[in-house]
Amino acid sequence: VSDRQSSISFSSAEEKLYSAVLADILDDLGFRHQALEPTIRPIGSPFKLVGRAFTILATDVYETPENPYVTELEAVDHLSEGDVVVATTNGSTSSALWGELLSTAARSKGARGAVIDGLTRDSIKIMEMGFPVFTRGFSPLDSKGRMDVISYGVPTRCGGVLVRPGDIVFGDHDGVVVIPRDVSDEALLRAVDKASGEDEMRRALKQGMGVMEAYNKYGIL
Amino acid sequence: VSDRQSSISFSSAEEKLYSAVLADILDDLGFRHQALEPTIRPIGSPFKLVGRAFTILATDVYETPENPYVTELEAVDHLSEGDVVVATTNGSTSSALWGELLSTAARSKGARGAVIDGLTRDSIKIMEMGFPVFTRGFSPLDSKGRMDVISYGVPTRCGGVLVRPGDIVFGDHDGVVVIPRDVSDEALLRAVDKASGEDEMRRALKQGMGVMEAYNKYGIL
Amino acid sequence: VSDRQSSISFSSAEEKLYSAVLADILDDLGFRHQALEPTIRPIGSPFKLVGRAFTILATDVYETPENPYVTELEAVDHLSEGDVVVATTNGSTSSALWGELLSTAARSKGARGAVIDGLTRDSIKIMEMGFPVFTRGFSPLDSKGRMDVISYGVPTRCGGVLVRPGDIVFGDHDGVVVIPRDVSDEALLRAVDKASGEDEMRRALKQGMGVMEAYNKYGIL
Amino acid sequence: VSDRQSSISFSSAEEKLYSAVLADILDDLGFRHQALEPTIRPIGSPFKLVGRAFTILATDVYETPENPYVTELEAVDHLSEGDVVVATTNGSTSSALWGELLSTAARSKGARGAVIDGLTRDSIKIMEMGFPVFTRGFSPLDSKGRMDVISYGVPTRCGGVLVRPGDIVFGDHDGVVVIPRDVSDEALLRAVDKASGEDEMRRALKQGMGVMEAYNKYGIL
Amino acid sequence: VSDRQSSISFSSAEEKLYSAVLADILDDLGFRHQALEPTIRPIGSPFKLVGRAFTILATDVYETPENPYVTELEAVDHLSEGDVVVATTNGSTSSALWGELLSTAARSKGARGAVIDGLTRDSIKIMEMGFPVFTRGFSPLDSKGRMDVISYGVPTRCGGVLVRPGDIVFGDHDGVVVIPRDVSDEALLRAVDKASGEDEMRRALKQGMGVMEAYNKYGIL
Amino acid sequence: VSDRQSSISFSSAEEKLYSAVLADILDDLGFRHQALEPTIRPIGSPFKLVGRAFTILATDVYETPENPYVTELEAVDHLSEGDVVVATTNGSTSSALWGELLSTAARSKGARGAVIDGLTRDSIKIMEMGFPVFTRGFSPLDSKGRMDVISYGVPTRCGGVLVRPGDIVFGDHDGVVVIPRDVSDEALLRAVDKASGEDEMRRALKQGMGVMEAYNKYGIL
Repeated sequence: VSDRQSSISFSSAEEKLYSAVLADILDDLGFRHQALEPTIRPIGSPFKLVGRAFTILATDVYETPENPYVTELEAVDHLSEGDVVVATTNGSTSSALWGELLSTAARSKGARGAVIDGLTRDSIKIMEMGFPVFTRGFSPLDSKGRMDVISYGVPTRCGGVLVRPGDIVFGDHDGVVVIPRDVSDEALLRAVDKASGEDEMRRALKQGMGVMEAYNKYGIL
Repeated sequence: VSDRQSSISFSSAEEKLYSAVLADILDDLGFRHQALEPTIRPIGSPFKLVGRAFTILATDVYETPENPYVTELEAVDHLSEGDVVVATTNGSTSSALWGELLSTAARSKGARGAVIDGLTRDSIKIMEMGFPVFTRGFSPLDSKGRMDVISYGVPTRCGGVLVRPGDIVFGDHDGVVVIPRDVSDEALLRAVDKASGEDEMRRALKQGMGVMEAYNKYGIL
Repeated sequence: VSDRQSSISFSSAEEKLYSAVLADILDDLGFRHQALEPTIRPIGSPFKLVGRAFTILATDVYETPENPYVTELEAVDHLSEGDVVVATTNGSTSSALWGELLSTAARSKGARGAVIDGLTRDSIKIMEMGFPVFTRGFSPLDSKGRMDVISYGVPTRCGGVLVRPGDIVFGDHDGVVVIPRDVSDEALLRAVDKASGEDEMRRALKQGMGVMEAYNKYGIL
Repeated sequence: VSDRQSSISFSSAEEKLYSAVLADILDDLGFRHQALEPTIRPIGSPFKLVGRAFTILATDVYETPENPYVTELEAVDHLSEGDVVVATTNGSTSSALWGELLSTAARSKGARGAVIDGLTRDSIKIMEMGFPVFTRGFSPLDSKGRMDVISYGVPTRCGGVLVRPGDIVFGDHDGVVVIPRDVSDEALLRAVDKASGEDEMRRALKQGMGVMEAYNKYGIL
Repeated sequence: VSDRQSSISFSSAEEKLYSAVLADILDDLGFRHQALEPTIRPIGSPFKLVGRAFTILATDVYETPENPYVTELEAVDHLSEGDVVVATTNGSTSSALWGELLSTAARSKGARGAVIDGLTRDSIKIMEMGFPVFTRGFSPLDSKGRMDVISYGVPTRCGGVLVRPGDIVFGDHDGVVVIPRDVSDEALLRAVDKASGEDEMRRALKQGMGVMEAYNKYGIL
Repeated sequence: VSDRQSSISFSSAEEKLYSAVLADILDDLGFRHQALEPTIRPIGSPFKLVGRAFTILATDVYETPENPYVTELEAVDHLSEGDVVVATTNGSTSSALWGELLSTAARSKGARGAVIDGLTRDSIKIMEMGFPVFTRGFSPLDSKGRMDVISYGVPTRCGGVLVRPGDIVFGDHDGVVVIPRDVSDEALLRAVDKASGEDEMRRALKQGMGVMEAYNKYGIL
């Protein structure tokens, strides 16, 4: 089906997994710098977001171009089922790159959410429509004449992590993890395994087992 | 009525407008630096706040003055119907400039809310009383011997934006916009117009119209 | 009983006090730098946390030690009834020092909560279990090979404040206050007194008394 | 002659003026935000730099383009007599935008110096050739695959100040001032006047006149 | 003589001491937070500066007062032999609080130098006159309408350290140390002792003695 | 000879190479994150420093240990001919990790210099003895009771770059580059080649060749 990028569907991954267990598996696989900076936070009530990275690269500008928004709109029109917008602003807080109309357009193309290394506006409306967005913060300012999308579908760095088109993005209340496309199948499957293994240890701890004894027995923390 | 500062009442503006549309109109009018820094955030459940700026200027000090709070109390006692306290601490995080007792006093004078370029305390009580406050964060520390109000009713810079007494302040979950008093009538009226125009585009996007086509047709984003 | 460290029990202090009134009393006693930096925030719904500081000192490392977690687990196994974990990471945002399994283990030992001068993971599960945690933010990354606990039960600096084992920690939505153990009895008792005294002034303000008149009459703000 | 942009030649301005007196005159003319951020510092032995702003806008990228450097080289080839390169990197410290070969090329086109809102490399060689450069710092890293020049000859913001092509740039050990082109003639002439007026006051102060008396007499500080 | 504040004259202290040995002695005396933040740096060629703190407290303002500079000039006119200006701007980088004319005026009153927790202008002229100044950086902008001195001769916090009038200030290339007035005699005398004791260890190390052996033998590092 | 770690001696590398050309070669070899953060700067007159990394890992502590300095002294006593101390403080600015006595001891063991991801004291004496040190800044404060060396000879992260014992460190006025030990031979040899190739292009540029033409002809920038 359309949301299958790997051995488990995105919906199934959202249900069974969480970012911490994925980060642990990526550590095991030798990928130790896959979590976006902690200043990129989810908007509104807790949610999970998983999908295929569709990258957008923006930068600050200081005059309104002849055709504002043109590359950004083109990018959004290229989104497809299962995509997650991963937009880099090169650290700009000059204005909001993302907003409600773009969320509406993205969702209508099948995008599952957005991760913005910058600011967002129309935050209440985005929460109301239930579109999952991670952002560094909020601004009422439009990007027109302040920021320009210069390319999309290219390798980019978002929140300190290199993201290539097709990498899998997984976000929840703890943050956002980027799973390199070449190991996404293996990582997702192993994460499902590990997630189910933690329950027994939790039970033992609740019954008063010392945490060192528990770690020695179950080998996880 | 007492809350009419411009062609539409503050209550009506709170109902019909939001900060993003006001920021767009201010852009159109050539005022492009009117949004406070995104680190100044609303406390508690989403709300809107609009009113006339009543400015307060505070700074860090390092000993308790003979008459602590004197200028701050004087300022609060000068608040009147429709005012919004806009307090600048020159970036201090040494202590909380604002709190519950000042909120109570300000409200009893008719103030509609407060925007604090610094820290706030008694945050739970402020939320319980439903007094709208924007702040950079929280601190349990009293300002006595740490901060002094040195003047009020003067031009000041709050969150990076010049605010003059009488400017209109509009805040919601996206942030705070300052509308210079000379253009506040025009800005508020034009914003009401623009706000109503966005609904049609939203509908078209939800029905799957490409976002570039929509932008070309409706001319907004 | 086990949660009595001072003249009033921790539960009673949680009920009657709040961080701002404690900070005021500490000011009166000459302890003016007892509030942690405002970037250390509570997780989830508002709560109060009070208990005896059990300090943990961690630092960034760059390879996985032979016996990962060993000192951290040892520390958690030494927690006892009424303790609050106060963990310093020396400002690290490299990974999450704290998480759900440690929260579960800490609670089973009688710990009342945790104050982490660093990042936390499993945040949703921690909120669900209702374990009070203050943190600088969130990360899905495990501390293994990124951070090591190097000692516990030692004087440490957390969020800019010196904390010694046995100091009393009080946290709520305004932040966290550290009460030096030698004055904790006196401070808690005086804070209870002051807290009850503020109600009258609040009533007067609501009835429209000028704030300067109220301050002159009641002597508090 | 080629270095005459205004009523006094650039060489003459370098000789007679300094940034502080120009900033004072711009204040008098109502231009109060014309000094670049103080983190942009001159390289090497003290010098003065004055010339016509030739703006370059760069941004971070994350893969090497097919034709690296192409817009940057094009920009440098368009420099002419009396120009000062004013390059904005949107705050990037990813690599060095400027270096010795570009300095050599710029000088051969007649450029008088460069102001880089980013990092520089080959710093020793640039000092040896005596080419005046202001920079935020140094890096050995090439910009190839890390930064791209996206346009030149456009309005840009450098070190927090809007710079338009043709504005006059004046830099010395105190920092860099941008003189809007429309007032550059007036500003330079008035600055020459003010500079000569300060000598008398300096003499009086050295002879022990109180500084308040001196200020009242000479009206300057 | 006029520069004797303590058992040794300021000139003699400048000759025999350095900031590191004073910091060590203050550590021994239990004063462990007496060094200004490392971002406050000396201007120009290496020098030492010692004298009695004369404190000035300034803050950002946003309009030009009726009588600009008035408190600042009054402060400078109150300087006397052996003073060091210690000026706090509450972290402002809005403009230069200090400059050449104030340096000239301060020196003519007998001041030995200045420590500015803010920016300075006329830096070249200050270096030429050989007036010792520590500063956070440089700006060509005048403080008029940007910063106001609000008091002097009061306790203040400069670079993170509480400074009271009459404390002794000692600065060199490693930074600035504040010696509380009550222990200044003892601290200066003990520092002279320690400084002379380090020579022997240095000789031993140069001759190849292991550093641990040397530390065990001489007890210093 | 003792300073030969690779195909060219350290002295020869210091003479023929500079950090920018090494960074370019490392880019070509696919190592693109090998330059320390630009806030780590050389002390005093320009120098070059090359040698084998000897890593030290320190962290902030908040009480004086029973045996202060013990691991640090042990580390310094283990230095040998050709080593460069590369010390990580995990970003601490609490005190100076490095100083003159340690420089003296390190040199007597054959160390060629030090790179400190933290602060340094005795800076004038270190400059006088001509020992090459890179540092984030200066502090008069001793590390005793403020910082502890917790290990040495381990992989560490210094200024954002992973450094393993035996990697080659090359520093000059542009910054510090870390050459992974496995490619150090190849990198140094290729860098010598590239360095000699740049002269021709420089000559062409000085003679007025357009910089784009030059780049197309020589393929370097």
